[in-house]
Amino acid sequence: MRPTITAFRNSPDGGGGHGRDMRVRWALEEAGVAYDVRLVDFDEMKQPAHLARHPFGQIPTYEEGDLVLFESGAIILHIAGHHPGLLPEGEHARARAIAWLFAALNTVEPAIVELEMAPYLDRDKPWYEERLVVLAERIRSKLDVLLPRLREAEWLEGGFSAADLMMVTVLRRIEGSPVLDEYPDLLAYVARATARPAYQRAFQAQLDVFRAAQAG
Amino acid sequence: MRPTITAFRNSPDGGGGHGRDMRVRWALEEAGVAYDVRLVDFDEMKQPAHLARHPFGQIPTYEEGDLVLFESGAIILHIAGHHPGLLPEGEHARARAIAWLFAALNTVEPAIVELEMAPYLDRDKPWYEERLVVLAERIRSKLDVLLPRLREAEWLEGGFSAADLMMVTVLRRIEGSPVLDEYPDLLAYVARATARPAYQRAFQAQLDVFRAAQAG
Repeated sequence: MRPTITAFRNSPDGGGGHGRDMRVRWALEEAGVAYDVRLVDFDEMKQPAHLARHPFGQIPTYEEGDLVLFESGAIILHIAGHHPGLLPEGEHARARAIAWLFAALNTVEPAIVELEMAPYLDRDKPWYEERLVVLAERIRSKLDVLLPRLREAEWLEGGFSAADLMMVTVLRRIEGSPVLDEYPDLLAYVARATARPAYQRAFQAQLDVFRAAQAG
Repeated sequence: MRPTITAFRNSPDGGGGHGRDMRVRWALEEAGVAYDVRLVDFDEMKQPAHLARHPFGQIPTYEEGDLVLFESGAIILHIAGHHPGLLPEGEHARARAIAWLFAALNTVEPAIVELEMAPYLDRDKPWYEERLVVLAERIRSKLDVLLPRLREAEWLEGGFSAADLMMVTVLRRIEGSPVLDEYPDLLAYVARATARPAYQRAFQAQLDVFRAAQAG
């Protein structure tokens, strides 16, 4: 059954592909699954129809027949459980890749989100610059762990997996930030992941949506 | 094969059961799996032997024969995949419960961790009180979503599941905080989860470890 996902009609990142729908688009492209997209704006995301899909009123969601899912991590695991190409074959390697997927979401991403939100929340505060230093240091403590691993190996656990898909979309949130630039080997990791044809197709698809909204 | 987990030798919360090992202990108790515990202190957590188990040098870890896992979410999913009682039977309900498990870790917990860390990071800053207000408001925006759901149903998705186990351990991190006290129905949810015999056994086990360390 062809799934339907939700994405921003008018992405606040200007087509940069930082919305969490990119994760789901990318996973579906890696799995070779065609999908439909339901576009929503911020008003629609707070309406009962969308809240029934996503209790927290965010994107992405995933609908496949009677199944309605939210949380990009859960959606990716669901797709990976039903299609080859997103998780290693062996049971142990599979569990390890899932551990790295959780690490991307629960250990690395929260530190990055704090830095990302700071300009919106705190830019006018006298302590803004001081806070940025603390937040950058927290991110470094995570990147310092990833660095040796991704210097020695191309991907987090065996071949490319959902763990890399998740980690790369998390790292892309600080692309262009001086913190990530301190880690050329991690930039190379992001580059080899985003060079994948499936990523490129997913990125183009979300960019097309943004451009259509701008033209519209 | 009997698994081994890691936990604090001398828990910084004084036996309050807020360490993430509680999640794994609780899941193993729900599943009826006996386990061993390797106790570590903060120094040992930064040594190569532990870093081989947990790249970020934290607890918990999970060892079962050749399999070594980190990240409490991944460990809980692994246990739930091999034992009944932690995820619903139907495939759709199972995927939904996993979505709520991710919501606990990636949507609710980060907001709570920020409030928890504030006294350590910012207590001496002139803007500390102002920051606490912002952080509490972020937590409320998450609890406002949980509230109606857990007023209407006993558990997040069907019967008690790994989703509740995770959400309750996340909510317990702000037990005693005025924010959580504003939500009596969520306090009742935490109370009915922590009244489960499996929770009680897990809590007692970690408390025994703490008391043994204190007794020296």
